[in-house]
Amino acid sequence: MPEIFDRVAIIGIGLIGSSIARALKEHGVCKEVVVGDISEAHGKRAVELGLCVAAHTDVAKAVSGADIVVICTPISTYESIADAIGPALKQGAIVTDVGSVKQKAIEAVKPRLPKHARWVAGHPVAGTENSGPDAGFAALFKGRWAIVTPEADSDADATAKISAMWTAFGSNVVTMDAEHHDLVLAITSHLPHLIAYTIVGTADDLETTLKSEVIKFSAGGFRDFTRIAASDPTMWRDVFLNNKEAVLEMLQRFTEDLIHLQRAIRWDEGQKLHDLFTRTRGIRRSIIEAKQA
Amino acid sequence: MPEIFDRVAIIGIGLIGSSIARALKEHGVCKEVVVGDISEAHGKRAVELGLCVAAHTDVAKAVSGADIVVICTPISTYESIADAIGPALKQGAIVTDVGSVKQKAIEAVKPRLPKHARWVAGHPVAGTENSGPDAGFAALFKGRWAIVTPEADSDADATAKISAMWTAFGSNVVTMDAEHHDLVLAITSHLPHLIAYTIVGTADDLETTLKSEVIKFSAGGFRDFTRIAASDPTMWRDVFLNNKEAVLEMLQRFTEDLIHLQRAIRWDEGQKLHDLFTRTRGIRRSIIEAKQA
Repeated sequence: MPEIFDRVAIIGIGLIGSSIARALKEHGVCKEVVVGDISEAHGKRAVELGLCVAAHTDVAKAVSGADIVVICTPISTYESIADAIGPALKQGAIVTDVGSVKQKAIEAVKPRLPKHARWVAGHPVAGTENSGPDAGFAALFKGRWAIVTPEADSDADATAKISAMWTAFGSNVVTMDAEHHDLVLAITSHLPHLIAYTIVGTADDLETTLKSEVIKFSAGGFRDFTRIAASDPTMWRDVFLNNKEAVLEMLQRFTEDLIHLQRAIRWDEGQKLHDLFTRTRGIRRSIIEAKQA
Repeated sequence: MPEIFDRVAIIGIGLIGSSIARALKEHGVCKEVVVGDISEAHGKRAVELGLCVAAHTDVAKAVSGADIVVICTPISTYESIADAIGPALKQGAIVTDVGSVKQKAIEAVKPRLPKHARWVAGHPVAGTENSGPDAGFAALFKGRWAIVTPEADSDADATAKISAMWTAFGSNVVTMDAEHHDLVLAITSHLPHLIAYTIVGTADDLETTLKSEVIKFSAGGFRDFTRIAASDPTMWRDVFLNNKEAVLEMLQRFTEDLIHLQRAIRWDEGQKLHDLFTRTRGIRRSIIEAKQA
């Protein structure tokens, strides 16, 4: 793999940021990585782990001289990060991100960057329930989708270089309209997370005796939900608040469908249940055929 | 492991039944297995796979001479199975089951068996989304809970022998009141399955273009739900119809909590979301500490 960049600046060295740092190194994508993170402890840890040559709590310092800046922080920080890095960006620097919501990411960052900067938003569809610089690993993006959402006026070379970086990490890159991205992710990712958070919360509100047994017998299905519901609270709060319309739309459909099933259970309409359960089994087969399982 | 039984009759040679047949053999728990299954094809397949010495579509024939009968069929079949096997049971034969609902299992079977039969209900908390005699494997129960729900008048020796069988399979055996079992499983297993079925159905109802992308990008969280929602339709229909009260109670709590979150998203109440997401992360840690993850 020939180097794509000389210097990469990673803003936020959590699960995703530190996985990118590791993947950049493993695949020889750049000469050096500099980290910007408001947490001094995380920056120090990143240096200790050999993830970067330097770490700064001042993000402007971190992006100085970087060919590309990858924003890996919760979306509520995007505006202030864009304001802070804007004046420090090298001429023609590429700026991208990894957020799970794309329209609000574009709205937050794009108008705050200088004209010479080349902004193209992105989203690697990958993650775990763990957080922090120690949680990352280079193979996180391997075989996973990386969605790049260029706009009509985006720089083609910047889009190509960002795509090349994800390809180097082993991801399958697709480009997509930001609005469409937000709708697809609302049902495939945001709603599942919201539901998982809800049911785990519902269980946590049960009387103490029952609650301890929920933990004990979680292998019956509940366990899969607890893994999802252990994901980073700040990142996910920001996802729901910043993809509000699509999430509320999908949530409304889901709630209608759930109440429809609730009624079927109450009125012993076994055939309705059986028909749905047979249909959903088919979807799983489609996913296995699409090699995503 | 000394043999616990001479002959075991397994009624229903699907995922659970065929896993029991394999585990019985692997751990030397009995001399021989006979299968009863209304599907002649499944019975033949069980013989081919070496899971049993004989298979019968007539369950009365299958239980003849058996020391223990293990019912491994959907709960809607229990009444007719109990009626059919009752007169054919050997004196003092043990009868148990593996169903996910226990109060209705007891109601369906107990009054239909002859006085000499020794009935004790059970439930191994284990499974996969696959079905049929080929789907089973001996290790399915290893390290998982097996819940036995004896009643006040249950035979202590029968309870001990059923427990010994699950212990031989590597399960951790607990005894529990049937009513309490149904409540615990409603939240740890039945509700998660219902929710997974619902969201996969909601996704399947989307317009065709969006639907194909749901499959493509399912790795974002949705995939875990599709696995759960691929579980056996008949078995799960029966679970919901036979644990109606506990499922409806848990469903009501879940829906309230979901609508509470929906409102928080609509009104930008980020702190509410963050508080819940932080709390649910703690539950996951409890489960990891309880070594169930």
